[in-house]
Parts: sequence; structure tokens; C-alpha cells
Amino acid sequence: MPRPVVLFSGQWADLPLEELAQKVSEWGYQGLDLCCWGDHFEVQRALSEDNYCPKKLDLLARYDLQLSVLSNHRVSQAICDRIEPRHRKILPDYVWGDGDSAGVQERAAEEMIATIRAAQKLGVGVVSGFSGSALWPGVMGYPAPNAEEVAEGLDDFAQKWHPILDVCQEANIRYALEIHPGQVAFDLYSAERVLEVLDGREEFGFTFDPSHFHWQGIDPAEFLRRFPDRIFHVHIKDIALNLNGRNGLLGSYLPYGDSRRGWDFRSPGHGGIDWEAVMRGLNSIGYDGPLAVEWKDTGMDRDYGAEDACKFVKRLDFPRPA
Amino acid sequence: MPRPVVLFSGQWADLPLEELAQKVSEWGYQGLDLCCWGDHFEVQRALSEDNYCPKKLDLLARYDLQLSVLSNHRVSQAICDRIEPRHRKILPDYVWGDGDSAGVQERAAEEMIATIRAAQKLGVGVVSGFSGSALWPGVMGYPAPNAEEVAEGLDDFAQKWHPILDVCQEANIRYALEIHPGQVAFDLYSAERVLEVLDGREEFGFTFDPSHFHWQGIDPAEFLRRFPDRIFHVHIKDIALNLNGRNGLLGSYLPYGDSRRGWDFRSPGHGGIDWEAVMRGLNSIGYDGPLAVEWKDTGMDRDYGAEDACKFVKRLDFPRPA
Amino acid sequence: MPRPVVLFSGQWADLPLEELAQKVSEWGYQGLDLCCWGDHFEVQRALSEDNYCPKKLDLLARYDLQLSVLSNHRVSQAICDRIEPRHRKILPDYVWGDGDSAGVQERAAEEMIATIRAAQKLGVGVVSGFSGSALWPGVMGYPAPNAEEVAEGLDDFAQKWHPILDVCQEANIRYALEIHPGQVAFDLYSAERVLEVLDGREEFGFTFDPSHFHWQGIDPAEFLRRFPDRIFHVHIKDIALNLNGRNGLLGSYLPYGDSRRGWDFRSPGHGGIDWEAVMRGLNSIGYDGPLAVEWKDTGMDRDYGAEDACKFVKRLDFPRPA
Amino acid sequence: MPRPVVLFSGQWADLPLEELAQKVSEWGYQGLDLCCWGDHFEVQRALSEDNYCPKKLDLLARYDLQLSVLSNHRVSQAICDRIEPRHRKILPDYVWGDGDSAGVQERAAEEMIATIRAAQKLGVGVVSGFSGSALWPGVMGYPAPNAEEVAEGLDDFAQKWHPILDVCQEANIRYALEIHPGQVAFDLYSAERVLEVLDGREEFGFTFDPSHFHWQGIDPAEFLRRFPDRIFHVHIKDIALNLNGRNGLLGSYLPYGDSRRGWDFRSPGHGGIDWEAVMRGLNSIGYDGPLAVEWKDTGMDRDYGAEDACKFVKRLDFPRPA
Amino acid sequence: MPRPVVLFSGQWADLPLEELAQKVSEWGYQGLDLCCWGDHFEVQRALSEDNYCPKKLDLLARYDLQLSVLSNHRVSQAICDRIEPRHRKILPDYVWGDGDSAGVQERAAEEMIATIRAAQKLGVGVVSGFSGSALWPGVMGYPAPNAEEVAEGLDDFAQKWHPILDVCQEANIRYALEIHPGQVAFDLYSAERVLEVLDGREEFGFTFDPSHFHWQGIDPAEFLRRFPDRIFHVHIKDIALNLNGRNGLLGSYLPYGDSRRGWDFRSPGHGGIDWEAVMRGLNSIGYDGPLAVEWKDTGMDRDYGAEDACKFVKRLDFPRPA
Amino acid sequence: MPRPVVLFSGQWADLPLEELAQKVSEWGYQGLDLCCWGDHFEVQRALSEDNYCPKKLDLLARYDLQLSVLSNHRVSQAICDRIEPRHRKILPDYVWGDGDSAGVQERAAEEMIATIRAAQKLGVGVVSGFSGSALWPGVMGYPAPNAEEVAEGLDDFAQKWHPILDVCQEANIRYALEIHPGQVAFDLYSAERVLEVLDGREEFGFTFDPSHFHWQGIDPAEFLRRFPDRIFHVHIKDIALNLNGRNGLLGSYLPYGDSRRGWDFRSPGHGGIDWEAVMRGLNSIGYDGPLAVEWKDTGMDRDYGAEDACKFVKRLDFPRPA
Repeated sequence: MPRPVVLFSGQWADLPLEELAQKVSEWGYQGLDLCCWGDHFEVQRALSEDNYCPKKLDLLARYDLQLSVLSNHRVSQAICDRIEPRHRKILPDYVWGDGDSAGVQERAAEEMIATIRAAQKLGVGVVSGFSGSALWPGVMGYPAPNAEEVAEGLDDFAQKWHPILDVCQEANIRYALEIHPGQVAFDLYSAERVLEVLDGREEFGFTFDPSHFHWQGIDPAEFLRRFPDRIFHVHIKDIALNLNGRNGLLGSYLPYGDSRRGWDFRSPGHGGIDWEAVMRGLNSIGYDGPLAVEWKDTGMDRDYGAEDACKFVKRLDFPRPA
Repeated sequence: MPRPVVLFSGQWADLPLEELAQKVSEWGYQGLDLCCWGDHFEVQRALSEDNYCPKKLDLLARYDLQLSVLSNHRVSQAICDRIEPRHRKILPDYVWGDGDSAGVQERAAEEMIATIRAAQKLGVGVVSGFSGSALWPGVMGYPAPNAEEVAEGLDDFAQKWHPILDVCQEANIRYALEIHPGQVAFDLYSAERVLEVLDGREEFGFTFDPSHFHWQGIDPAEFLRRFPDRIFHVHIKDIALNLNGRNGLLGSYLPYGDSRRGWDFRSPGHGGIDWEAVMRGLNSIGYDGPLAVEWKDTGMDRDYGAEDACKFVKRLDFPRPA
Repeated sequence: MPRPVVLFSGQWADLPLEELAQKVSEWGYQGLDLCCWGDHFEVQRALSEDNYCPKKLDLLARYDLQLSVLSNHRVSQAICDRIEPRHRKILPDYVWGDGDSAGVQERAAEEMIATIRAAQKLGVGVVSGFSGSALWPGVMGYPAPNAEEVAEGLDDFAQKWHPILDVCQEANIRYALEIHPGQVAFDLYSAERVLEVLDGREEFGFTFDPSHFHWQGIDPAEFLRRFPDRIFHVHIKDIALNLNGRNGLLGSYLPYGDSRRGWDFRSPGHGGIDWEAVMRGLNSIGYDGPLAVEWKDTGMDRDYGAEDACKFVKRLDFPRPA
Repeated sequence: MPRPVVLFSGQWADLPLEELAQKVSEWGYQGLDLCCWGDHFEVQRALSEDNYCPKKLDLLARYDLQLSVLSNHRVSQAICDRIEPRHRKILPDYVWGDGDSAGVQERAAEEMIATIRAAQKLGVGVVSGFSGSALWPGVMGYPAPNAEEVAEGLDDFAQKWHPILDVCQEANIRYALEIHPGQVAFDLYSAERVLEVLDGREEFGFTFDPSHFHWQGIDPAEFLRRFPDRIFHVHIKDIALNLNGRNGLLGSYLPYGDSRRGWDFRSPGHGGIDWEAVMRGLNSIGYDGPLAVEWKDTGMDRDYGAEDACKFVKRLDFPRPA
Repeated sequence: MPRPVVLFSGQWADLPLEELAQKVSEWGYQGLDLCCWGDHFEVQRALSEDNYCPKKLDLLARYDLQLSVLSNHRVSQAICDRIEPRHRKILPDYVWGDGDSAGVQERAAEEMIATIRAAQKLGVGVVSGFSGSALWPGVMGYPAPNAEEVAEGLDDFAQKWHPILDVCQEANIRYALEIHPGQVAFDLYSAERVLEVLDGREEFGFTFDPSHFHWQGIDPAEFLRRFPDRIFHVHIKDIALNLNGRNGLLGSYLPYGDSRRGWDFRSPGHGGIDWEAVMRGLNSIGYDGPLAVEWKDTGMDRDYGAEDACKFVKRLDFPRPA
Repeated sequence: MPRPVVLFSGQWADLPLEELAQKVSEWGYQGLDLCCWGDHFEVQRALSEDNYCPKKLDLLARYDLQLSVLSNHRVSQAICDRIEPRHRKILPDYVWGDGDSAGVQERAAEEMIATIRAAQKLGVGVVSGFSGSALWPGVMGYPAPNAEEVAEGLDDFAQKWHPILDVCQEANIRYALEIHPGQVAFDLYSAERVLEVLDGREEFGFTFDPSHFHWQGIDPAEFLRRFPDRIFHVHIKDIALNLNGRNGLLGSYLPYGDSRRGWDFRSPGHGGIDWEAVMRGLNSIGYDGPLAVEWKDTGMDRDYGAEDACKFVKRLDFPRPA
């Protein structure tokens, strides 16, 4: 049976959920990977209002959409990052507070615990998001952290996330860290390190998005083979390289859509990802969860693209041998 | 006439300068790009002790070495960076102080002004170094800075560096920012932005090191063509890519020399840089300054490699047409 | 709104226009890029017979086809070329006359002025064609023209074309020179030179056909980015490279369809052009004109191919963001 | 025994032969491929002055240089070309005359016969040069010649060259047409055609210069395998491709040395030719003639480069198995 | 008219022919390439039972399927191979007998003659299969056979196959040897040798399966151009390379479907074969026979894949020009 | 200290050892990897004649050559192979006997035990050779062995080699199986299997020759990283791929030196091996044994090449960091 094709709502939070749900259903999607910003899902209301969650589920059911995953990338980013002004734009005011680094980190961690609780109320089994990272500025920067400093940075992550994962365990929810620049794990070997530092606890795994591997030169299928039992969620996002000698992989401060960039995100099937290899990789590890389109493409009409992506993913997901 | 081949002393600061000078001379080098750490060059002593600079010059003269460039990457890194514990290992105690971010930045800026003054006393025309960057964590991280935040970050750089460049102007010294990850300029378009934000002031240009372009997918010769009059200094350092599907360009927290890394530095001529193209690029822009070997190669004996590199660079630097 | 997909009638002039119009309409095209040979469009009759143009427009209207562009590549080729016997086969007898070079060039220029006038009568805003070139034999030949000779060749072009462009200006028609081997502009930098020599006059721009860039090693999207306001018309033609060490890019005198050739034209989507990149390039410069299939493929049934191409181009032309 | 390494004097005709001979000898060359322009070799004087040839041979002998090949590319170009003003700069006045096409062609043919006679007086067994071509403007231009026109163009070549080859036969001299853009043969299949149209007469073969194959995408070693008994002479010239999406293979009217060009000539060993494969190809066909460095490199000092090239070729020419 | 798309039944012999025929018909196939194992086709019954062949043809006719080709790869493998235990699993007991090499070879040859006779009764014009090869273990093994030993091995093949081909000639049936590892012909030049050793007898040609060329680095279209009149049958099977530095082309004893393999078979269109080039190659040689899908893909549901493949091949087979 | 550079004498057995020793010494080699055929080393005489070994050692000592390794590829090939006529040319008559497979295998095994004993007498610590393989014909052939048959084939190897390795253990000699087509281990994963089936016994490791990996698409450095403690010996042999669409990796029965082959062996440094990566791989695993040039290159004079190779390897072997 093919996997459910759902849309990650994060890039659509400018639309009221009801409006998005109607579109998504018409485009052929079978569900949503729901983000915790805009009116899509408000964590504090979910915990404090009894009928908040049932109403959301109801709304989705009216459009025949399942709720596969709850995502809170924005708040989770603040847990291990050194907080800077740019973080303010992704955080609710009550998490930002006075913007002092330690306080923001703490409130962000509390909000993630609240997110887990809210997911439990929704009956969702996977929460997806980021981690932030105290190590990030040194990963490619100068001076590079030495072995001891790396170990300290990863310990800091473990200390901050164990309490959240404890709640996951209790709530029977799995946390899917998206392998992504800016997080403690951004490639294959850093993912190995992160699993080690958590002693491989079972609540913790990954959201796999091949677009972040491609420009780093990593084979996404190889990542799947390396962590067959840790792929908790999948984002379908494409990317095109456009290297011509002048531009580069680090983006030159240029916004998405600027044709001088060395790479840019694309509607699935319109970039360079070898989707056949990705799908066979998912098949070979027995991944049966949703395929969540994360739609980003500055060169294509958004509605057209979301529908096109849904059809593309369905064509892609051929049946495996019995 | 071929350009002088010199050695950047930064990776050799564990050796007393006299010992290094003797070796360097025997290996065939014609001079040094002198770093401001170890006993190689102490900025405060240079300013406070009358015979410090003459003695250094004397020492070099005894080994028939010229002094082309003074380099202070370590201190300059702290000027725009948000200071973290990992910075402590690259700063003199009197710059680090209590480690508070704003204070460290300020003391680092003062030390760079002192470095310029010291260079003046030495009679050196180019100071090479870094800038640090308030923007760096967001370059590949999340959330990316928006256009306004990028502008603010670059303004911050300009504000902090104008006073230093004013001293350069007065002292008739050029500052050569190394295009390097972690700095305000790390690729071609970010270098354009940085020149713009400084209104193209003439004291400011670049240290060109092709190894930092290579893994980003940028053509080093294209960079030279883009900034023909801003190449103030050149580092000769090689790099080898080793992508195999598992590793990646961001290095996975792995130290240099770990065979799992996606790339590693190499003795010049032992990596993937197209040196023929680099040399022709330098010829076509009329660069006549020194070629400074920055020797890093965890897989080769250091003394053997430094001598090998000197010969390599001399072979490479064929005469241009009259 | 997607761009109109039309067929360039030049390769179909063996069919009476009425027969072609019926086919073209059934295949799903929305219009024609009409050539001035065969019975498709006869310039002199258009000028001398009052109802010639209305009848042509009527014919097309019956099949629901718009007339986007009038093309006269054949005659325009003779304006700057040194005339040789092979030109006779592409010229009307009254232009060829006695075949003397200067006379043919002159009569060809007059015929192009007549073509502009005819386009005006038809109500068509763009005339597409060639230029010929006094420089062509020396471009890759021996001895290469020196800088002065290049300048003279381009001046010759400007002198011969200014009068034609003057008529364009008066008639409010734009001339779209196809960037093509054998013309004054055949690649990006030669196109720059040609615009310069015409002082950038606004009636003059380009017909963009990516197939001519591909075998030269030029990125078609780069050309679009370089001349965003000069793309007046677009040909959709594909090409496949087939280099195997024995054949080469200059074609060895071998006719299209000979499997020993180093490259050959192909039905759109059956060759090596990166159409996704071309379409995004057209989107990014805001090109809103027709997409004219120029169908050439010796290995495919012509009728099947033309229909297949129409569907292909429609799928390709996805909506841009609002 | 290694093949003699000689220098083609064509690019050095600004120097008196005596001055060149001295340099060439010091650089390590064993002989010259002598051009018929400058004071290097004057065909008419050679025929009319009894001691002209002995004196030249004497001069070379004083510097221990052999005379391997006599080259007259300039005059031979005019035999089949349609003559244009740019030809004037490569022809002696007595060949150019009034510049009328038919007359120039005829006088050029006579001069080539004189060149053969002069070679005979010198005791040289190979004359190298071009052919010109009536077909050239149509090879990549528009309209392409059809099969009949190609046949006519090649017949024109055969008619014009048979009389010259008759003199070759009588004088026991072989003519080596350089496979080169602008000539009747410019790639593998056109070379096949040219041999056919001459009925394979034995006086006729090729000067092989791999640099002209490289940018066309042709494997030079494959050419050698195809014509094992027709390689009469070899030019050693290198070339570097520099395609970056903007430039192209047809050169954009840009002079050599302009960094925007898609390719440029290089001193041997400094470009992209696979010399190992070329040398093994020459070995496998048993070529035992001279290896003539044709030195062109706008980015390198000429004297340095010529000496460097001589050493390079000697290193390259390893002994074959007995 | 498009070529018939048929399914090779060899991988489906676990299903009774009737069950397969029904499926195949529903999936859109127009016929079968019938294997001589399972209940699909039993050679001895076909010869001994009068109504065996008519019944089979009847069965197929009921599902509107044509019978294009009869295939007996298994038995034909044993004709020239040195027999080993692994052969037992592909041979009927009456061919295996006591397993003694010479006896098995002889009985296999007799069975192939019976297969030809059976094909004649069925009215099928092409029999497809293997040859086995006495030379195979030495092709890549040690010590390699010398020229004499190669000649002996090919003579052995000719001696064993001439009697079978004599029956083919008499029965007006063509034998199509699949170019495949393990056979006397496995690439282009070995196919040339095999045709030579048979003096080019006309009953003998090839089954072309591009998947066996791809991993060997051979261009399938080049093979078609080399043997335009010897392509008697075509298998449509795809293959994907997956080289990552650790695995290799010889497969490491790993079974199909093991993700560590260097290559694996794929459903047509899901691998690396350039089908456009294959189809144009078939067009250019005028091949008009069936396109037989040989379906092997361990990563895809078999029924889904067979239907998907049928649609894929039909889309691929565009009409040629008249 | 650099590793000793030695010559493998196997390709020089046509020369008397004394003659070879003199040459080898003059070329700059420091020793020999001595083969057990020709007069280089006769196993039975070594065991039966008391002064045979001392005399050999004496001879080498006179030319200042060390004896690093004893090699018996020829006899060892026969231990697991099914014996065919082509084996006769590599075996002594007393091993071949009547050529019956089981008997030859047995006698070959005895001869290998004798070889170990002889090595012990010589004081050599490593014996290098092959294994033969009952599995080889099925590795790429048809039908492929199933998992059970693979296991049987490897067990057969273990049974036949355990007694030989027992003697190695007793004699304190290591056996270095060359990873090579035709042996039980020919790539990385098959080498893993072979170590497993021997329970990793310590006397058993590999002779590493990167040329056999290259055409299989395997990264030699990856092999070194996988088996850091099993590299007992190293062959330095180069290889060049020459794929052009017609030829292929399996060699088409063509002898070395035929220019139609898809690959051919080359003198070290004249092919496609990335020697820098190989040398760094050897450094990173701490290999300190000899580097044995195995010289094969049909396109180069043998004596010239052997000397050239010695110099090449010495340049390559740069010192590692302390």
C-alpha cells in the first residue's frame, strides 16, 4: 500500500488552516504535517482549551485529511542556539521574553514539552523539529572547536533534550530531528555522534529531507542505509545546483530566488534529487510513514506547484515486492 | 621576475622564530609572512620596545629572508564575532580579559590598531587577517537573516573596521582580509557586498587563498578576474575533496586528518587546486606580491612538505610575457 | 497565464498553409510563427494585393490560430553575407537576380523592408530572421580577422541594417535576430558587440533558440540573464550531443540524420537541453511572448513529433508566482 | 631512438632566422620546421638564387639544427578560399596582386608549386600547409551546402591541388595538410572525404595538431588510429578549455589571451591535451618523423616557454618496445 | 506502425502459462517471448504430442497474444560450458543425466535441435538463447587464454553449433544469441569474432539486451550500428549503477537486491539506460521485431512493474519518418 | 624512512636472475619480489640442495638487493581452479602431471607448502600468490551460483588452504593473496567473505594491487581503510581506461597492447590510478613493507620503463608525520 502523501503546512501559515485544508484536499493530499505557528496549531491553546484539539481534528476530517505529524521547528531551534536578534522572528513573544539567551533557551525547552503534550492530545505519534546547536558557528567557522569543545557542545544538547525526550517516552511519542544545517546533526557522521551522545534512546530519530544532503555532496540513500530504524519522518523537497564558477554553496547572503545563488530549492521533481534512489532507499529500510511535501520554489506558482508535487510523489511511490 | 616565495609562519609558531628562519632559508624560501603569535611577533613589545622591530628584521636578514606581510588572523577574528569560549584559545589573555563579548571585541579592535602601528614600524606594507562576523551563524543556519538583518550585520562590520582602516590609511598600510568561512566575506558575492559597505576604500582588499573556494564550488580564477585591484596577498594552500556519498562538505565535526572527512588540506600540488589556472589568473591581474605557502597537511612530514612546497611554487611561477 | 504555444512554419513550407493550419490546430497549437516562403506568406503579394493579408488572417482565424511572428530568415541571410552559389536555393528569383554579391545584398535589404511593411499590414509586432555576416568565414577560419577587421565587419552590418530598423521603428515593429552560427551574433559576447554597434536601439533584439547554444558549450539560461530586455522571440528546438571521440562539433559535412554526426537536432524533450532551466530563465526575465516550436528531427515522424512537441511545451510552461 | 624535437618557426618570423637559430639551439631543439615568411625562407629567392638554399642549410648546420619540414600555410590558404580583404595580410604582394579572387587563387597555386621545388632544392621531404576551402563558410553557416554542393566544393579542391601534388610526386615530396578549421579537412570524417576525392594518392597526407581536435570534442588518438599511414608531420601545441556557461567554443570575436574566451592555446603540457595518449598513438602507428613544437601561449614569456616546451616534449617521448 | 510489445516469460515460469497470459493481456502486452521451462513450453511434449502446439497457440489467442519468439537460454547454456554442479538447476533431468560434462553438452545440443523443430511447429521465426563458452573462465581470469587458445575455444563453439544452425536453415528459423556474460559473445568485438568464426551464416544473429552492455561501459547504440542486420530480437531490461568506491562491477557474490552491489537490474525506465538512444538506434537499423520486456527488479512489485514497463515501452516507441 | 622499492621479477623470468639483478640495481631498486619460475627461484631445488638458498641470497647481496617477498602466483592458481588446458602453460610438469583436475589441485597445494618451506629457508616473511577459485566461472557467468553454492565454493577454498596456512603459522610466514580476478577474493566484499571463512586467521592477508580495482570501479584507498591490518604486500602497477562506446571492461578476447581494448596496464604514473590517494592510504594504515613495481606496459620499452617506475615510486613515497 502506498504511503500517505501529506503537505507540511509550515510554508502556508499565512493561510488560515481551514482555507489550506480545502485546497490540500482538492490537490489530492491525504493529510497534513501540521506546523505550530500561524493559526495552524497553537500549543498553549491546545493545552488550555479542552475542545481545541478535537476541533482541529474535526476540521481536517471534514476534508478527509489525516494528521500524521506535528512540527515545531521554530521553537525547537532556540533550545541549543546562542540566541541572536534574528531568532525573534521565529518565536512567540512569550518564548522570546526579554531575549536573554539562557532564558529564551529555557522557555523554548518548556514550549517543546508542551508541544509533546499537545501532540499526545491530538493522538499524533511523531513530533518533528530542530534542535539548535551551540556548536554551529564553529562548524565551518574559525576557530574550529577542538575535540573537547565538540564533546561539550554535544553534551549541552543531550542535557537540554533528555527532559524533553523523557516526556516523549512517557507520552509514547517519537521526536524526529530534521537533519539540517544549524542543528546538532547536519550530516551522516554528525548524526552518528548525536545518537551516541543520547545513548541511542529510542524516542529519538530523524526527519529525513534529502535536499539538505544534496548540496553537501552526501548521498541521501546512503544516509537511509546507515540509519534504517531511525527514520521517523520524511520531507519531500527538491533542490537544484547552479554552480558556474562565480557562485558557491554557502549562498553569498543572497535570498532564495536570486538567480546568482549556487543552489535553490525546487518543487519536487524539478531539481537534482535522485528520487528513484530515495524511494528505493525508503523501501529497503521499510519506512511506512507519510511522505510530507515541503513545498519551496520561488520560481513556480505555489498552488500549481503543490498540486504538481502531490501527483509527482504518488507516481514515485511504486509498490514494493510482497 | 618571479614573485618572492615566502612561508606563512602561523602553523609554525611552536618553533622559535630563529629556528624557523634557519629552516625556511635552507628550504629555499625568500621570506616570511609573519604571524603575531608565539614568539614570532609580539605586537605590544613591538610598540613598547624600541629595538624589538629592528632585532626581528635583523634576525631575518641574517637568513636572507624578507618580511613581506604581517598576519594577525587570531585577534582580528574576535572583532565582529559573538565571542564564545572557543575564542579563548586564539587570543592573548589581555585581549580575552573576562571574555565578555563586547569587551573582547573592543580590545581586539585596539590590538589590531596596534598591529597596524607595529607593521609600520617594521616597514611592512600589508597586514593580513580576518574580520569575524556577526552574520556567520546565520549564513547556513536557521533562521537565515533577512535582507535587513544582513545589512545590519555588514554595517556592524563597517563601523568596527573603519577606525582600523583609518589608521591603515594614515600609516600607508593595506589590510588584506582573507576570504574564508567565518568572515564577513567568504565567497565572490559576499566580497562584493563587503567592498560596497566600505565604499570601496582603498586600504581594504583581500588575501586570496584558493583552498577556501574549492570546496564551495567556486572557481578561484574567476574571483581574481572579479577583483583585479583588490588582491593584496596570496596564500598557497591546497585541498583535496574526498566525497564518497557518506561524508560531506561541512566536515561532520571531524578533525583534519580523519580519513572520513569530505575534504582536507594538502601540501601545495598534492590536492585538487588547478594551480596553472590560479597562476595565470594572478598573471592576468598583474599581481606582483609574495606567494605565501600556508602549509597544512596532516598526512605529510612537515619539514619535507615545506621544502617540497617551496620548490613546487617556484616551478609554478613561470615568467609572463613582457 | 501560460504563453501561447505556436509552430514555426519554416520546416513545413512544402505543405499549403491551409493544410498545415488544420493540422496545427488539431495538434493543439495556438498559433503560427509564419515563414515568408512557400505559399505561407508572399511578401510582394502582401504589399501589392489589398486582400492578401486579410485572407491569410482569415484562414488562420478559421482554425483558431493567432499570428504571433513573421519570419524571413532566408532573405535576411543575404544582407551581410558574401553571396555564394549556395545562397540561390534560399532566395526568390527576384532577389537573386544575376547573383552578383553587392546587388543581391541590396535587393535582400529591400525585401526585408518590404517584409516589415507586410508585417505591419498583418498587425504582427515581431519580425524574426537572420543577418548574414561578412565576418563569418573568419570566425573559426584562417586567418582570423584582427580587431580592426572585426570592427569593420560589424560596421558593415550596422550600415546595412540601420535603414531596415528605421522602418521597424516607424512601423512599431521589433526585429528579432536569431542568435545562430553564420550571423553577426552567434554567442553571448558577439551579441553584446552587436548591441553596442547598434547603440542599443530598441527595435533590435533576439530570437532565442537554445539548441544553437548547447553544442557551443554555452548555458542558454545565462544568455537570458544577460539580455533580459532583448528576448523578442523564442524558438523551442532540442539537440542531442553524440560525441564518441571520432566525430566532432563541426559536423564533418554530414547531413542531419547521419548517425556519425557529433550532434543532431531533436524534437523538444528528446535531446539534451535543460528545459526546466530555460523555462525558469524565461520566467525570471518576464518573457511573455510565444513559444514557437521549430520542429527538426530526422529520426521521428513529423506529424507525430509536432503534436508531441506541443504537449511537451504546454507541460513545461508552469505558472509563475503572482 | 627518440624523434627529433624541432620548433615550427612560423610564430617567430619577427626574428631573423640567425637569431632564432641560436636561441633554438640553446633551448635544446634539434631542428626547425621552417616557415616561408619573414626572412626564414623566401621561396622565389630560393629558386632564383643558386646559393640561397645552401646558405640556409649552412646557417642551420652551424647551430647543429636539422631541417625537417618546410611550411607554407599562408600561401596555401589562398588556393581554395574565396579571397577576402583579410587574406591580404598573409600573402606576399606578388601573390595578392589586385586581390581578385580567381587570380589570387591561381597565383597562390603557382607559389605552392614553387614551394615544392624549393623544398626539393633544400632536400626536405615534407611540405606542410593548408588548403583553403570553398566550403568553409557553409560548414557551420547557413544555408548548409547540400550533398551536391559538398561534392562540388571537394572537387574544386581536387582540381586545384592535383597539379601541385603532381609536382610533389615528381619531386618525391609529401604534402602534409594540417587538419585545421578553415581547410577542406578539419575533423576525422572530413579527412576521410578528402582522401577519397584524391583517390588516396600517396603524396598526400596530414599534419596532425591535436589542439584543433580538442575543442571540437574529437579524440586525437582516434584520428591517429584511423589514418596510420597518412600522418606525415606532427605539431605539438596545447589548448585549454575554459567553458563557464557564458563563453563558447566559437570564440566570440575575442583575440587570443582574452580571459573571456572559451578556449585558448597553451604551451605544451600547460593545457588539456592528453599527451600520454597522443604519444602512445604516434608510437602505435610507427610515426618516426619530427615533433614540431608550435608555440602559442599569450600568458607565458615566449623564450621561457619555448625552452620549457622542448624539455616537455623530450620527457614525453619515451622509447617504444623493440 | 509501432513494434509489438511482448513479455519474456522466463522470469514468470512459477505461474502457469494460462494465469500469466491473462495478466499479460490485461497489462496491455501484445504477445509473449515464450520460455521453454515451467509449463510455459515443454519441448519434448511439443514434438511428441500432436495437439500440444495448437493448444498453446489457442491459449494465447484467447488472450489476444501473439507468439513472437521461443527462448531456451537454460539448455543452450550447457552446450559449450564446462559443466559444473550449478548447471544442474537449469537443466531438465533428461539433459543433465549423470552430469558428465561431455554427455551433458551433447544432450543439450540435441535438445536445442528439438527446440528448433518445436519452434517450426509453432510457426515461430526466431529462437533466442545462449551458447555457453569454453573460454569464459579465462576471459577475466588467470591465466588468460592466448591467441591460439581463444581460436580453439571459438572453433569449439562453431563445431557444436553448426549442426544446430543447419536445422535452423532447413526450418527457416533464425537463432538469436543473447550477447551476455558467460557466452562466446559478450561485447562488440567478441560478437565480431563469433560472426567470423561462423563465416557469417545468415541464420545466426543476436538478441540485444542493453543492460548487459551498460555496466561493461559499452554504448548499446554503437552495437546496433555495428550489426544492423544481425539484431534478431530485443530484450528491454534496465540497470542502475551504484558505484561508491566500496562496491564494484563484478558483484562481490552478492545477490540481486543487495544494496551493497555495484549495479542491479531495474524495471525499464527506472535505471540508467538511455532508452531514447536505444530506440533511435533500433529505428536507424530498421528493426521491426518485437520489444520483449525482460522484467527483473528486486525493489518493485512484480505485477505493478510489468504493467508499468508495458506502458513505458509503448510511450518510447514513437513513429519513424516514412 | 621511505619504504624499500623493489621489482616483482615475474615479468622478467625470461632473463637469468643474475642479469636482472644487475639491471635492477642500476635502475635504483633496493630489492626484489622474487617469482618461483624461470631460473629466479626453483622451489624443489631450494628444498633439496643445501646451498641453493644461500647462493641466491649471495647473488642478490652482490647487487645490494634485499629479498622482500617470494611469489608463486602460477602454482597457487591451480589449487582451487577447475583445471583446464590453459593451466598447463603456468605449471611445472611435475605439478601438471596428467592434467586431471583433482590431482593437479593436490599437487599444487603440496608445491605451495614447499614454497612456504623454501621461503623459510630464505628468511623471507611474506609469500605472495593467488588462490584459484571454484566459483570464478559463475561470478559474472550464467547461471550465477546461489547463496548455498557460494558458501560451498568458499568452504572448498578454506579446506584446501588451511593446511597451507598451518605451515605458514608454524614457519612464521604470512600469506598475501593478491586481490585479483580469478581468485576467491577480487573486490572488497569478496575479501570480507574470504576473511570470514578463514575465521580471520592471522597468517592470511592480501597483496594489494590497485590496478585490479580501478577498472572494477572500486576506490583502492577505500580497500586499504577497510583492511588496515591485512595488507601484507603491495604491487605498484598502473592501468588506463580507454572506453569509447565500442570497447568494454571485459576485454573482448583482445591481447594487452591492442588499441581496441577498454583498458590496459601501464607503467606506474602513466595511467589513471590516483597514486597520491594510494600512498596516503598506505600511510594512514601504517604499511611499512616494500612497494613492489609489477611492470607491465606493452607501449613502452621495458628497461626504460622499469627505471622510470623506480624513480616515480621514490618521488611518490613522501615522509609521513612523525
